[in-house]
Amino acid sequence: MHEDVTESTGLFAVPGFTGAACKTGVKPSGELDLALIRADAPMSAAGMFTTNATAAAPVTLSRAALAAEPHARTLVINSGNANALTGPDGHTHAQAMLDRAALRCGGPALVLSTGVIGVPLPIDAVLSGIDHASTALHREAGPEVSRAILTTDSRIKQCALVATDAQPYTIGGIAKGSGMIHPSMATMLAVIATDAVVAPRRLRALLLRAVERSFHEISVDGDTSTNDAVILLAGASSCEDAPLPIGLEAGLVAVARSLARQIIEDGEGATRVMEIHITRARTHDDARRLARAIACSSLVKTALAGADPNWGRILSAAGNADVPLEPSAMTLRLGHQLVFDRGRPVVCDDAALRAHFAGARVRVELDVASGDHRARMLTTDLSRRYVEINSEYTT
Amino acid sequence: MHEDVTESTGLFAVPGFTGAACKTGVKPSGELDLALIRADAPMSAAGMFTTNATAAAPVTLSRAALAAEPHARTLVINSGNANALTGPDGHTHAQAMLDRAALRCGGPALVLSTGVIGVPLPIDAVLSGIDHASTALHREAGPEVSRAILTTDSRIKQCALVATDAQPYTIGGIAKGSGMIHPSMATMLAVIATDAVVAPRRLRALLLRAVERSFHEISVDGDTSTNDAVILLAGASSCEDAPLPIGLEAGLVAVARSLARQIIEDGEGATRVMEIHITRARTHDDARRLARAIACSSLVKTALAGADPNWGRILSAAGNADVPLEPSAMTLRLGHQLVFDRGRPVVCDDAALRAHFAGARVRVELDVASGDHRARMLTTDLSRRYVEINSEYTT
Repeated sequence: MHEDVTESTGLFAVPGFTGAACKTGVKPSGELDLALIRADAPMSAAGMFTTNATAAAPVTLSRAALAAEPHARTLVINSGNANALTGPDGHTHAQAMLDRAALRCGGPALVLSTGVIGVPLPIDAVLSGIDHASTALHREAGPEVSRAILTTDSRIKQCALVATDAQPYTIGGIAKGSGMIHPSMATMLAVIATDAVVAPRRLRALLLRAVERSFHEISVDGDTSTNDAVILLAGASSCEDAPLPIGLEAGLVAVARSLARQIIEDGEGATRVMEIHITRARTHDDARRLARAIACSSLVKTALAGADPNWGRILSAAGNADVPLEPSAMTLRLGHQLVFDRGRPVVCDDAALRAHFAGARVRVELDVASGDHRARMLTTDLSRRYVEINSEYTT
Repeated sequence: MHEDVTESTGLFAVPGFTGAACKTGVKPSGELDLALIRADAPMSAAGMFTTNATAAAPVTLSRAALAAEPHARTLVINSGNANALTGPDGHTHAQAMLDRAALRCGGPALVLSTGVIGVPLPIDAVLSGIDHASTALHREAGPEVSRAILTTDSRIKQCALVATDAQPYTIGGIAKGSGMIHPSMATMLAVIATDAVVAPRRLRALLLRAVERSFHEISVDGDTSTNDAVILLAGASSCEDAPLPIGLEAGLVAVARSLARQIIEDGEGATRVMEIHITRARTHDDARRLARAIACSSLVKTALAGADPNWGRILSAAGNADVPLEPSAMTLRLGHQLVFDRGRPVVCDDAALRAHFAGARVRVELDVASGDHRARMLTTDLSRRYVEINSEYTT
């Protein structure tokens, strides 16, 4: 049994963590821009990182560190500068951050960065910030740490849940995203921790499955940034075969989904969210491609901004997914209204459709009648405000 | 030797064609919406059609017709209704249009449609229009035919060139695109003809190569519509091995490129065009993927709308192309200014960069130093006007 996911606490609801945040001056606004997260003892650790071929130095470094040693005790995260596309100096700077965090708080350490791309990191200020924050670690660090990792987000993202089984445990997480301004705020970070004990190899498998059902189901603008990273920490274990606590995977999925939903709801310029369900696809990959093609179509997303139940654009976007389709077998529902029934347009209640599209959450269900696989994606509308945010805030 | 491509004439500059256009009432505005194009004798014909899996009935029908018989004498094109996602009736209607055109003007005939998706075609009005137009065929039909195939385009697209070699010939074409409004104007059509004599199999190869270097190098919003089609007609020949006229392929490429450029310059909400060059890629496919990833990135396209020389977004978009990259070897030029030199950001003349990005045509050159393949793409900016056009014009 789990309690419900709460958004009133986050990572620091998990016992055994301290943290601190400070201002290094990297953010021109003078806001918090450096965070330390420290476990009382080294933990099992797993990470999933951006697939972008121009991955930032901290991504490359933390990925290599976890591959060599799947444990972590200290995380250092800076915001306001992504340390991406910064050349050899970028790697030197990321290594210096990791080394300083391990020195002050105990290793193994990992480093994450988010913010402007292509600008050299002011490393001395950042290292001084690590020194300073390391003297201020405390247990109630949730508010300051979850704020210090933000860039253009309008609010903090956190959640936690408590399992009340024979083996009680807590799962908590924080996240930031999906702002990409000035010139490219790069972009989605999440840290999730649990005091449940899990060996590293099983932890990695758990993370892969949880991300597949959460962060991989959201799209704001189809771009995968240079710095995307999700880190999962759990109680260390030397026993690969120990049974997992009951409900741990479901709990991780619930926490990851909550964070993903908070990210999409804070998407740039978003006024409403479209939830896309593909059913009866030939393969899971087909289902995912169809969902993504709809979620990433500019024409679908502008129709959503205009609250326009434009089903022709949805089917045409699905047709671009590079998936074999038989239009004469396809059925489309908007909200719960049938609009296209096995290849034929349906005369339907236009006023009800418009009312559904004018709401905060729009549901699309496309049945392609080719198999038994399904997929789900959340996307935001492409509004004038999105364009304003991304075109008028010049470098 | 060719004369330069002229935009003052188009398809009807080629000897041997007559045409006519009329108003059937399909367009609520009452504008011209039906066109007939007729050759004095059957011609070699080749077509390239949308890869969208929800291809419209006229696309399916014309593709099958050309596969069975690669000749055509008459083309019937209606605008205002795409006859896409219209169920079994859609196929019946497309076949009726093709049959009526062949009956009135002589076969083989082909049919193309563009306009609203998912709305039944008022077939009686369209067939009456074919009857009417077939009585009015004349040689000076360029202005009316090129106008009758438009949907939300702001201007007609046409061009022609004359070869002045030993074997003189003319190439001319008309096109429409890229509007996708109300609910989805589906979308790019082009018809190119030449009086040069070419056997069908060679004509198809010529068309593939010309499209690869023209229409496949443009993107307005990354969507491939249900109705995209390019038709190429040439003088009929029974001899597969006859040598091609000198310069014919270069001439076709020049005409197709001119039409593609006219389409992109009339892109919805477009205020400027970005010309993307990828050099030294490992394969041609890699080069094309990199160019497309940049051309389709919402973040690159919004930066372009804001006249913002945001090179971080360009490199990050390239990183999303699913192409192996070595950032430390990559070099990026904007205009002719170096901004990223073999993995390192370059301090450059910001005022000159901004001036370049404020112009009507922005040049991006990305050298990935992995091989010797290159690709080129043209894209438009993603402006507030694009969002307005696509979200505020409701169904």
